Amino acid sequence: MKSKFTLDHIGIAVETLEKGNAFYEAMGLGPMHVEDVPSEKVRVGFYELDNGARIELLEPTTEDSPIAKFLKQRGPGVQQVCLRVPDIKSTIAELKAKGIQMINDEPRLGAGDCLVAFVHPKSAGGVLIELSQPRGSKT
Amino acid sequence: MKSKFTLDHIGIAVETLEKGNAFYEAMGLGPMHVEDVPSEKVRVGFYELDNGARIELLEPTTEDSPIAKFLKQRGPGVQQVCLRVPDIKSTIAELKAKGIQMINDEPRLGAGDCLVAFVHPKSAGGVLIELSQPRGSKT
Repeated sequence: MKSKFTLDHIGIAVETLEKGNAFYEAMGLGPMHVEDVPSEKVRVGFYELDNGARIELLEPTTEDSPIAKFLKQRGPGVQQVCLRVPDIKSTIAELKAKGIQMINDEPRLGAGDCLVAFVHPKSAGGVLIELSQPRGSKT
Repeated sequence: MKSKFTLDHIGIAVETLEKGNAFYEAMGLGPMHVEDVPSEKVRVGFYELDNGARIELLEPTTEDSPIAKFLKQRGPGVQQVCLRVPDIKSTIAELKAKGIQMINDEPRLGAGDCLVAFVHPKSAGGVLIELSQPRGSKT
């Protein structure tokens, strides 16, 4: 049975988009779309796959960017997994009621006009999970 | 522009399925489907999302399982990303021609009656990429 949630994207920390995209370009996934997200201190390069899921390469734009810290600690690799949910506020409330620790109790505006909130990796088996709801999508 | 490749699944290393699935069960993604894959020395618990992508929890079943080694080195977290391709042999040939290093030059039979081959993380920005083609799907 399929769920009502969608695998929206995988975020991969890279030192630079130009260095990190070699494999994806060799696969013929290009052209990569590039977007600056100053609020997150990253430059994002993304590829859209056949089922609408995206691979997002995350390049830090400042030394105090969370991605810069991730690279220093772990090196390049998968930094986050984003699940698209139909109603982020009710999902957060449900998770908290079940003892799941959130990084963000309230959704905030993220890239691509989406409301986003992060789940603490401690509560999600070591994986940084982003929840995302496109604004105005709630039915 | 969407590509001809699909984000098939994310593989997440967990100590046990029972310990690793708390977040996904709290999200209401269950029930988890469990499969033994003796050839890979893992027990797999998976959840199918709305766009057909899956989240696969990987529990090692032996001490020399690649997942046991991963857990020892890095702890629980994302271990692999699997892309579904329409013709795995031609994808491997194309990648090799472009200097991408494969772990498997020849596809082998993996779980779910798929032909699979791994790309070396060195050639894919620190990410272990699995290529997968359902058998008999080549057109």
